[in-house]
Amino acid sequence: MQQATQTITAATPAHQSDERERLLAGFREVRGRSQILAEPLSPEDMTAQSMADASPAKWHLAHTTWFFETFILRDYRPGYRAFHPAYNFLFNSYYESVGERHARPRRGLLTRPSAAEVLDYRRHVDTALEALVIEAPVDAWLQLAPLLELGLHHEMQHQELLLTDVLHLLAQNPLSPAYRDAPLQSGSSAPPLTWWDHDGGLVEIGHDGAGFAYDCEGPRHSVFLQPFALASRPVSNGDWLAFMADGGYENANLWLSDAWATVQSEGWRAPLYWEEEAADGLWTAMTLLGRRQVDPQAPVCHVSLFEADAYARWAGARLPKEAELEVAVAGLPVAGNLLGSDVLMPQAGTGTADRPDQLYGDVWEWTQSAYGPYPGFRAPEGAVGEYNGKFMCSQFVLRGGSCVTPDAQLRPSYRNFFYPHQRWQFTGLRLAKDRS
Amino acid sequence: MQQATQTITAATPAHQSDERERLLAGFREVRGRSQILAEPLSPEDMTAQSMADASPAKWHLAHTTWFFETFILRDYRPGYRAFHPAYNFLFNSYYESVGERHARPRRGLLTRPSAAEVLDYRRHVDTALEALVIEAPVDAWLQLAPLLELGLHHEMQHQELLLTDVLHLLAQNPLSPAYRDAPLQSGSSAPPLTWWDHDGGLVEIGHDGAGFAYDCEGPRHSVFLQPFALASRPVSNGDWLAFMADGGYENANLWLSDAWATVQSEGWRAPLYWEEEAADGLWTAMTLLGRRQVDPQAPVCHVSLFEADAYARWAGARLPKEAELEVAVAGLPVAGNLLGSDVLMPQAGTGTADRPDQLYGDVWEWTQSAYGPYPGFRAPEGAVGEYNGKFMCSQFVLRGGSCVTPDAQLRPSYRNFFYPHQRWQFTGLRLAKDRS
Amino acid sequence: MQQATQTITAATPAHQSDERERLLAGFREVRGRSQILAEPLSPEDMTAQSMADASPAKWHLAHTTWFFETFILRDYRPGYRAFHPAYNFLFNSYYESVGERHARPRRGLLTRPSAAEVLDYRRHVDTALEALVIEAPVDAWLQLAPLLELGLHHEMQHQELLLTDVLHLLAQNPLSPAYRDAPLQSGSSAPPLTWWDHDGGLVEIGHDGAGFAYDCEGPRHSVFLQPFALASRPVSNGDWLAFMADGGYENANLWLSDAWATVQSEGWRAPLYWEEEAADGLWTAMTLLGRRQVDPQAPVCHVSLFEADAYARWAGARLPKEAELEVAVAGLPVAGNLLGSDVLMPQAGTGTADRPDQLYGDVWEWTQSAYGPYPGFRAPEGAVGEYNGKFMCSQFVLRGGSCVTPDAQLRPSYRNFFYPHQRWQFTGLRLAKDRS
Amino acid sequence: MQQATQTITAATPAHQSDERERLLAGFREVRGRSQILAEPLSPEDMTAQSMADASPAKWHLAHTTWFFETFILRDYRPGYRAFHPAYNFLFNSYYESVGERHARPRRGLLTRPSAAEVLDYRRHVDTALEALVIEAPVDAWLQLAPLLELGLHHEMQHQELLLTDVLHLLAQNPLSPAYRDAPLQSGSSAPPLTWWDHDGGLVEIGHDGAGFAYDCEGPRHSVFLQPFALASRPVSNGDWLAFMADGGYENANLWLSDAWATVQSEGWRAPLYWEEEAADGLWTAMTLLGRRQVDPQAPVCHVSLFEADAYARWAGARLPKEAELEVAVAGLPVAGNLLGSDVLMPQAGTGTADRPDQLYGDVWEWTQSAYGPYPGFRAPEGAVGEYNGKFMCSQFVLRGGSCVTPDAQLRPSYRNFFYPHQRWQFTGLRLAKDRS
Repeated sequence: MQQATQTITAATPAHQSDERERLLAGFREVRGRSQILAEPLSPEDMTAQSMADASPAKWHLAHTTWFFETFILRDYRPGYRAFHPAYNFLFNSYYESVGERHARPRRGLLTRPSAAEVLDYRRHVDTALEALVIEAPVDAWLQLAPLLELGLHHEMQHQELLLTDVLHLLAQNPLSPAYRDAPLQSGSSAPPLTWWDHDGGLVEIGHDGAGFAYDCEGPRHSVFLQPFALASRPVSNGDWLAFMADGGYENANLWLSDAWATVQSEGWRAPLYWEEEAADGLWTAMTLLGRRQVDPQAPVCHVSLFEADAYARWAGARLPKEAELEVAVAGLPVAGNLLGSDVLMPQAGTGTADRPDQLYGDVWEWTQSAYGPYPGFRAPEGAVGEYNGKFMCSQFVLRGGSCVTPDAQLRPSYRNFFYPHQRWQFTGLRLAKDRS
Repeated sequence: MQQATQTITAATPAHQSDERERLLAGFREVRGRSQILAEPLSPEDMTAQSMADASPAKWHLAHTTWFFETFILRDYRPGYRAFHPAYNFLFNSYYESVGERHARPRRGLLTRPSAAEVLDYRRHVDTALEALVIEAPVDAWLQLAPLLELGLHHEMQHQELLLTDVLHLLAQNPLSPAYRDAPLQSGSSAPPLTWWDHDGGLVEIGHDGAGFAYDCEGPRHSVFLQPFALASRPVSNGDWLAFMADGGYENANLWLSDAWATVQSEGWRAPLYWEEEAADGLWTAMTLLGRRQVDPQAPVCHVSLFEADAYARWAGARLPKEAELEVAVAGLPVAGNLLGSDVLMPQAGTGTADRPDQLYGDVWEWTQSAYGPYPGFRAPEGAVGEYNGKFMCSQFVLRGGSCVTPDAQLRPSYRNFFYPHQRWQFTGLRLAKDRS
Repeated sequence: MQQATQTITAATPAHQSDERERLLAGFREVRGRSQILAEPLSPEDMTAQSMADASPAKWHLAHTTWFFETFILRDYRPGYRAFHPAYNFLFNSYYESVGERHARPRRGLLTRPSAAEVLDYRRHVDTALEALVIEAPVDAWLQLAPLLELGLHHEMQHQELLLTDVLHLLAQNPLSPAYRDAPLQSGSSAPPLTWWDHDGGLVEIGHDGAGFAYDCEGPRHSVFLQPFALASRPVSNGDWLAFMADGGYENANLWLSDAWATVQSEGWRAPLYWEEEAADGLWTAMTLLGRRQVDPQAPVCHVSLFEADAYARWAGARLPKEAELEVAVAGLPVAGNLLGSDVLMPQAGTGTADRPDQLYGDVWEWTQSAYGPYPGFRAPEGAVGEYNGKFMCSQFVLRGGSCVTPDAQLRPSYRNFFYPHQRWQFTGLRLAKDRS
Repeated sequence: MQQATQTITAATPAHQSDERERLLAGFREVRGRSQILAEPLSPEDMTAQSMADASPAKWHLAHTTWFFETFILRDYRPGYRAFHPAYNFLFNSYYESVGERHARPRRGLLTRPSAAEVLDYRRHVDTALEALVIEAPVDAWLQLAPLLELGLHHEMQHQELLLTDVLHLLAQNPLSPAYRDAPLQSGSSAPPLTWWDHDGGLVEIGHDGAGFAYDCEGPRHSVFLQPFALASRPVSNGDWLAFMADGGYENANLWLSDAWATVQSEGWRAPLYWEEEAADGLWTAMTLLGRRQVDPQAPVCHVSLFEADAYARWAGARLPKEAELEVAVAGLPVAGNLLGSDVLMPQAGTGTADRPDQLYGDVWEWTQSAYGPYPGFRAPEGAVGEYNGKFMCSQFVLRGGSCVTPDAQLRPSYRNFFYPHQRWQFTGLRLAKDRS
């Protein structure tokens, strides 16, 4: 695990005790938030698994705990006793280096440990971890601090997954239960779509090493871009309804070959969670706030790359490259309709003066960039090296975060990635164009 | 539903008020027992579904309630209000006549209603049903009494299924949690296997119309049997270990063609739930009382018809016909290691003087008889007619009940049926032979 | 293989040389007919496999040859050299005792040996076999004669399969090529349906040992039948069109549970090979004589047991038991629209005075009898014992032969069997009724 | 189709009649070569389809003919009569714009038209096409000439596919028949692996518009490359055996996540077509020249991107980007072990002075570049626009051609593409490294 410390670019503490305090506060905040997010859920809700791609909420709570136990406490806390000998098998997600593990599609069968026992597990690990942060000798601290920071970012990722998976689970229920009740909002109007021009040329992207970032965000490197334009806002539900009304889902010529095969085999004719309530085209969508009428002003959500790409072709545009979005967001503060705003649904933006709007928050934006290694990337040795590198195949990069992404998780260089057919994440799109 | 009343052979009450009292007492006892059986289960345990063939415990509790609501309260209780408008969709099992229903393999995704809400549902229906039993006018009573009796037998079937499905669920958990803790018993010895001879000839089987029976148990009719012999006890785990040691699972010549394909595709090499703990052949089996060492004296359990048939061929014998087992059990009291004995595991028998032992209880006994209609059988009109008749294809009859079968459910004519590859039920076998 | 000689009931020759002559003539006739049946086929037609259930024509020609080589020449012809060392692997169908074999669904990938080489193989084996028949010493002859007779009946079965599989293959081709061209016939009218009554009681069925029969046709034994009636003719296409017009394929209540699942997953709405040419209900069917308009007078063909059973329920009747059909056909000469008539399609019958018509020929008639062992049946030792016994599970018996069944293959006791969902065979049905 | 003419970059003829002669000669040569390649095949070989990814040889011969008929004769040859009305359905591959088509996985069921009829079809179209080339008025010629050139390149692609698919088919046959017999060659030795350095920087890739190229090869554009090194030769079988001996196929840490799942589900432990003849590690491989001992000096072939990537990681290197390979090959003549050399197997190279060896020929080289649109790419309107653009998802680029690639098909900018799990093509790899 020593090598693992090199695998993430950690902030070097000016004063080590400040750093301990900062991480301890961060630890408490992140760990506490996970449990707050789980509060509206019954033990039954926390246990069920709606599909192989999703995990039970209880599993998310336990797996993030296992991460701290396995990568920090086991190695750096002398005398630490694992909470339960079987949990390494049950709550290892995909780390081949750490041993055999429970089959992913069977996570929903783990009715034991109970939700209550998982909370006990969290307390057990939190207590030991907090003591370790305070008591660790300097040498150990310097090694474990980057792992602790990694663990916090890991848990933030799982907070988003927890909400995303809960929505998928509740959407399978004919009762359409809400994760949280909320009054019906009258949505604001989406500003008109305009284009933001960029002249291209040699630009730099990737993380520059200051503060935390995942290994896959670097090395920072040069990329040559042709002149391009980005839409001022994401594609809205209203835009999408126009695409549907124009026969978008029935016109093979708009779709990639794999995409069209999926449209036909899956019977897609609208974004995930949409249902047509009547023949007159009134659509509702399942959300964390229950089933609601589709708001034409809000960004479209829960579309796959396949759909995003078809839409862009229909609109006479294309999907952005990840470098184009990174250039556009460079220097902007991380702000927007993220988890911290506690809205839990994408919303219409307000428009800004000189940059594309909503580059952070609301919906993850699909790019045309296949998720791959940056020049010079090499995955670190050891289990932590499995975090990102081994997924660099057949997935596409998304940028910008969504309404359920913890704010502290994002940076201009942040790369999310999913398969082109997946659409249960909070995924939408923004159009781009070539400029000649 | 009026026609449905003809579809079951109901006891005609000597005194109608006695009958009301008898059924009311039965109702309370059966309904109460379901909830007692669910008591050891957490909300998580009650919600999960381990495979498409099994159902969550919560679903069993709700579906049996829906049966009374749908087939009795809706038709015979003026002013009855359904507990929830969506429950007819959620808790209808397979009755095409009653409308669309939730897909069976997705029952485990119903985290709502919660286990607590299902208990509320039960109380709601029980209250209305009990009032109806007391208050129903005579005409209505005469129509609903057979449906009430049917509902009780239906619920008893689901009590066995609940325990069977819970065992399957807990067996998926690497923690091997017990449904109920119990001390380790020192099993008694199985008596030596002897043979009980019957001369065959023209015999009568099927229900004679006195007391409750399912439609598929009649009409009573003549069958011609060749002389045969039945083993004095079921095949034991010890017997089965000898079959395994002799390469039973590796010898294609012992198996039906479909069976051999299943052995190979599923990798079968022992009964379901068995695990070899070490190379020295120590086997354990998951049971309702946790994972336990296999007792060589107890009847083998959780074997498919495919396996039972192969074993019989290996033993130079055959499986019995259902008529042979019915003739053997005729006139015997319903007694044995059934649910009432509360042992929850098959046990070695004691041997009896003049009849095969353990014809009731311990394990369901596979027969070579395909489940089909008796001569003159015609399924009744209406939804109740879907209870049995539509399953008369590709399944095999089992006889005698198991250690988790409610005692009151059984009769000499009782026909259970499953597909030949299924083995999560408490299924074993008894050998038979032709006599020349 | 010595034991195998007991496994079939062979005719004992009055004069051994007569028997050799009889079998030699039979051999030449059967072997020659296989090649005549293949003559209309191109090398391409002979090689392709349209589904896992079917085999290429070339494979049928080779496998039947392998049967004689493996079970007779290898053991009884001193110095016999196998035609090719790999053919035992390539052309063994399902005999586990004879070793590993080529996977069934991959038979269509065997472009080599070519069709011409397979004919060479046939010549090689025929020459050796004919010499053996003439030259075998008496001891050997007595052992091999029953195997030779078995081989002839085996090849006759494959003649029917060859035609059945060729029809399935040609039906996959959008060009609808005919196996053989033939003028359009004006079909005769089906006689009105009447009922033939039988009083039931104790009857005997099964082969009595005189002449050839398969092991599964015996032992002859007593069966008790309730009074019944049989329809005078098979169900016709016209009858079936009425069933379809009445919504037969849309009414769940008519179908067995497994059947309804199949109707929905497969989208069945008519017999196999039927296509609706226009919205006005004009149906055509693919046949060995090309695609033709459905003749309402002819027996319906290419329906599964699932469909036959649903039809019978719709008609207020039921499928016959196999014993009922055997009693009805007992004593009748084997005559009808069989392969010998060279019509290759089911035809309307003419009606007869005192027995149900068309009990032989036109279409195989589904029964409600699961294919299982007769009382006292025990499969013979050795490879020949795999011929029938291991298929006694989940299949249903059919009786009477079809328009592509070689005449000499049939007897009153002949039992054909297929799975209830299969319908590429020439299968139809005749109704039966209980008499009270 | 008019727009389609813009979709390829056609050479503008200095003298139009020269151009007609050039294309006529090219047409005759390409069409003739297809038939020469099919000569060793029997009608059976030409008909079978070994998997959904492959097509029958007969289908390749017909489909390439259909291409000329559909995109040229139908539009530009007045009075042209289609050879057969159903062929547009049968031989359209994937052009949604041209209408419905026969399902790809069912191409092997088309036993009709026969191989002979397909050759008739070719003659019919060739005659009409040749007449058209001579007789077309200038206006039509200017429109059809680029389509004709496209058709020739299309047919060259199918020549490679034909051989590739034939190898796959013959490899399914336990007889291991050779496409062509050839004496066993003593392979020459592979030169030692050295590294060719490139300083990176801003480079140009993509087709510059002179001569034919597919739409996906342009527009030519700038790319910024970091300094890199390329191996002097492809990875050899000997290299691969070392990877295998080091447990390459058993070490999860070497594999992408999707790759490891495939290794386990498919049971991969060597390249496709390899078989271990004995426990001592003697490997043979099926080739177009029959099953042969693996030559350690020759480039490894029939490996997937998944395997190539794992090998590169094991070797401490990486796969090249497509731009790196294009830069390396720029300016080199198209020469190497291509189809024109008629060797039909990859061979060891000889080494060259100043460039990496074997950049053309022997094996297609996997790159780490996902197949996607170049900046400014837009697929042309109409059916021809379906040629490449709709496959730009989830596939990876390969460069350089193989021993079965027609020489005239290649250019420095040529992009081949397949899914990362596919390995029935003649695919290998060359290592690359970052230079710091």
